[in-house]
Amino acid sequence: MPKFTPLIESLPSTTPFVGPEALERRSGAAIKARIGANESVFGPAPSVIAAMRAHAHQAWMYGDPENHDLKQALAAHLNVPAENIGLGEGIDGLFGYAVRLFVEQGVSVATSLGAYPTFNFHVTGFGGKLVTTPYVQDREDPAALLKLAARENAKIIYFANPDNPMGTVWPASDVQALIDAVPPSTMLMLDEAYTEFAAANTRPALDVTRRNVLRFRTFSKAYGLAGARVGYVIGHADIIKAFDKIRNHFGIVRLSQIAAIAALKDQAWLQHVVEQVRLSRESIYEIAKANGLKPITSAANFVAIDCGRDGAFAKAVVDGLLKHGVFTRMPGVAPLNRCIRVSCGTEDQLDHLAEALPKVLELIHA
Amino acid sequence: MPKFTPLIESLPSTTPFVGPEALERRSGAAIKARIGANESVFGPAPSVIAAMRAHAHQAWMYGDPENHDLKQALAAHLNVPAENIGLGEGIDGLFGYAVRLFVEQGVSVATSLGAYPTFNFHVTGFGGKLVTTPYVQDREDPAALLKLAARENAKIIYFANPDNPMGTVWPASDVQALIDAVPPSTMLMLDEAYTEFAAANTRPALDVTRRNVLRFRTFSKAYGLAGARVGYVIGHADIIKAFDKIRNHFGIVRLSQIAAIAALKDQAWLQHVVEQVRLSRESIYEIAKANGLKPITSAANFVAIDCGRDGAFAKAVVDGLLKHGVFTRMPGVAPLNRCIRVSCGTEDQLDHLAEALPKVLELIHA
Repeated sequence: MPKFTPLIESLPSTTPFVGPEALERRSGAAIKARIGANESVFGPAPSVIAAMRAHAHQAWMYGDPENHDLKQALAAHLNVPAENIGLGEGIDGLFGYAVRLFVEQGVSVATSLGAYPTFNFHVTGFGGKLVTTPYVQDREDPAALLKLAARENAKIIYFANPDNPMGTVWPASDVQALIDAVPPSTMLMLDEAYTEFAAANTRPALDVTRRNVLRFRTFSKAYGLAGARVGYVIGHADIIKAFDKIRNHFGIVRLSQIAAIAALKDQAWLQHVVEQVRLSRESIYEIAKANGLKPITSAANFVAIDCGRDGAFAKAVVDGLLKHGVFTRMPGVAPLNRCIRVSCGTEDQLDHLAEALPKVLELIHA
Repeated sequence: MPKFTPLIESLPSTTPFVGPEALERRSGAAIKARIGANESVFGPAPSVIAAMRAHAHQAWMYGDPENHDLKQALAAHLNVPAENIGLGEGIDGLFGYAVRLFVEQGVSVATSLGAYPTFNFHVTGFGGKLVTTPYVQDREDPAALLKLAARENAKIIYFANPDNPMGTVWPASDVQALIDAVPPSTMLMLDEAYTEFAAANTRPALDVTRRNVLRFRTFSKAYGLAGARVGYVIGHADIIKAFDKIRNHFGIVRLSQIAAIAALKDQAWLQHVVEQVRLSRESIYEIAKANGLKPITSAANFVAIDCGRDGAFAKAVVDGLLKHGVFTRMPGVAPLNRCIRVSCGTEDQLDHLAEALPKVLELIHA
């Protein structure tokens, strides 16, 4: 048979995440509370749904490959020139392109041990060598990342603020200090997928004159459009332009472009969702505490709950919850994997969690 | 600044296609007849539009990363096991993945001079070396492709049936002969994006026991869902499984999965579209002949019209038509670029073409 490249041969067959639909198919039990993938259960704005319905008949047309209108809308919203914004098929798609721009076989990339697996998937996928530093007090450690990157001659530093899977966050001043300290030849990839849920003082000012910082944001989280696959990257025009060399130019779905533009317009809905998420986080904190578990204060649309034991224990909790129709996830590596990760849910969904969790814990302890 | 990889540095900044929206922005003139991108102006089925509208509110959920339901529906439709079907973000997205599986720097890939530019974009993007053989009588030349591949030790042969941009087609027996002759270590990538428009006797039987053939199909053309980005690849299970190592697992839009499933169910609409396309091709033939030009008989949803002169002349026709609000395209290289390529349109759109074409030709001749 035709031979795969040596790199492809070397890649593992594991995938970053199993979807809730697959879990349903395997378990045979319907998911009643879909609170595991950090989707926004509060949905896109009604105005966005209306826009999608109104334009569904246009699906025969390719989306504009330049994403012009969406880019202009983002430029106005962010107050940066359109040439500093790149669009992609979700942040996941953009990570693939961004890594490919800088990574070839043997190139080192620095991240935190237990941080976003899909970023790692792309680094490994292009032959990069992942080097990691541990979380400290459940936060990514900017100073350690800088040291690690210097020691390992890393081409990229990955840093998420707020972090996933822990939900922790650094103040803007610390992130700015990281930005200022990154060597000119190293690209800082700043993952801000959850930034809309966090306080404004966690976001350093956008500065598109820097050639070594890329900031990634998305319509998948606060805007409630995970299924539409629209992410964007903000950076120096020379870097943004380079994405054109490799991206799937017609890759963004036309209806998703329309949905994203409508979503940007409806900032009132965004604020509504942010408030719902805040209330939901509080409820998750309460449910955790009522069960003798320790919630970690979150700046995102999910809460990591410290179950106080090891990964096997947390996995038993996640598996037990799934049997009750409650879909959650958990971090992949120690010590983070002492936690389960619960996405913000509707009251009804959190009622399911509150009902199932004590039963699951009781069964594990028995 | 952080250095791009040498491969990225070496890539040109040109993009495969300029979208009609960009042409509108540059020309300032509205497009009245969008018949340049081989989209299906007849649209997706009303049942598909209804399904998209009914599920728009679900956009907050990621699509199933395993594409299970769509894969099952395709498996039933094609009568092949689901493990032999891979989904991707249009055929363009799948080409990116497929090329990446087999091509690294310096690897040769055989195609026809003037064939699908986006395939070439991906080959070059992963460092592959394109080697080409000319079209013969406006058809891709299977025998020459085989010889070329043998001489250049090509890892991949690209072959489209029907062909784009010429619309010509080979009978199934010739394609089967190509399949049978491809060396075991060479992958034949058979692009069947337009197959639904062609006669059944142009499609060799699917045979998923072969490890060196991948067949690419799409919902973008006959199913009228170009903007939804859903393509699929049929092949040996070992090859299909390898896509999981690199694909954007959550890359397909949830609403597009739903649209594709609904589209497959509505085969009556597909037949309606195929008939509309047949009639439209006839109209385009007539318009071409009425203007002293020579249409090339097409098996796809577009017609290449031989303008009888060189590429500069054909370009003047395409540019002239655009000034009249008629968006068409043309092949990129000689001798194919003596043609313009007109996608099948509604009666109204073809009326625009019929009105504009003589004026454009007159102006050029003057």
